Amino acid sequence: MRVLGVDPGLRTMGWGVIESDGSRMRHVANGLCRSDGKQELALRLVALHRQLTEVIALYAPEAAAIEQTFVNSDGAGSLKLGQARGVALLALAEAGLSIGEYAPNKVKKTVVGVGHAAKEQIDHMVRMQLPGAVPEGPDAADALAIALCHAVHLSTARAWATVRA
Amino acid sequence: MRVLGVDPGLRTMGWGVIESDGSRMRHVANGLCRSDGKQELALRLVALHRQLTEVIALYAPEAAAIEQTFVNSDGAGSLKLGQARGVALLALAEAGLSIGEYAPNKVKKTVVGVGHAAKEQIDHMVRMQLPGAVPEGPDAADALAIALCHAVHLSTARAWATVRA
Repeated sequence: MRVLGVDPGLRTMGWGVIESDGSRMRHVANGLCRSDGKQELALRLVALHRQLTEVIALYAPEAAAIEQTFVNSDGAGSLKLGQARGVALLALAEAGLSIGEYAPNKVKKTVVGVGHAAKEQIDHMVRMQLPGAVPEGPDAADALAIALCHAVHLSTARAWATVRA
Repeated sequence: MRVLGVDPGLRTMGWGVIESDGSRMRHVANGLCRSDGKQELALRLVALHRQLTEVIALYAPEAAAIEQTFVNSDGAGSLKLGQARGVALLALAEAGLSIGEYAPNKVKKTVVGVGHAAKEQIDHMVRMQLPGAVPEGPDAADALAIALCHAVHLSTARAWATVRA
């Protein structure tokens, strides 16, 4: 099964595509959708939506997952992130993908083994679990981690379903 | 000039279309884009984006304006609103519309005369300034007020340009 992970953000939006076959995981591609900070917000959202739609068309994932966003005291930051996350969710749902949502510490726990992990640890574990993967940056590494997390949860759910059948 | 105003929200997104000719303003239409609270967030965003895109196609506005959002202590609310606002901005920009952004108190000051005004006052002044307008609800009245605010500012800017020429 081909899984797309997305780490939403307004300046850079990380994405990562993996192929899972039971517990075997394979890296397919990863990258960043970018928007120009000097442009108007609406045009930046158009650019992000278009780039993510292109990624979906190119890699044809069968499932998608996105990071759950937690809001902190930075309301302006939450609003910016919300707008970027909105167009990412839109692009995924327009493609008919069902979307898994995982809290950041759930992703880290699944991929690194602990709920709190530094960016470098995530990058390291992503490369370990996906031989050949070279994340284009921390946001792309996060996106691959989200895809891995979703793939693990999907295959566990399927295994349980078989046991119970 | 035909102006579309949008009052973004996740459950209901108000919209209002007016026609301005200098200081003369005419109501064209208003309404609400709605999303079903029982659906997944991504599907709700798809529904809002589709409905607003249909409004734009139907009424062919030449300019658009949206309320500037202020973030408060309710971070989760800011995030929700941000996601809805993101897909609204996307729909407007995809249609090639330039987008004015106005703070809520700027809109009230222009339409009601004071920066702080109750919902009923906005509804009342919108009906006064746009004879025949029957807002579908407070969010639609707000959207018409935003359109009025943008139309006033555009025509003032044009008048100044003429004076200076």
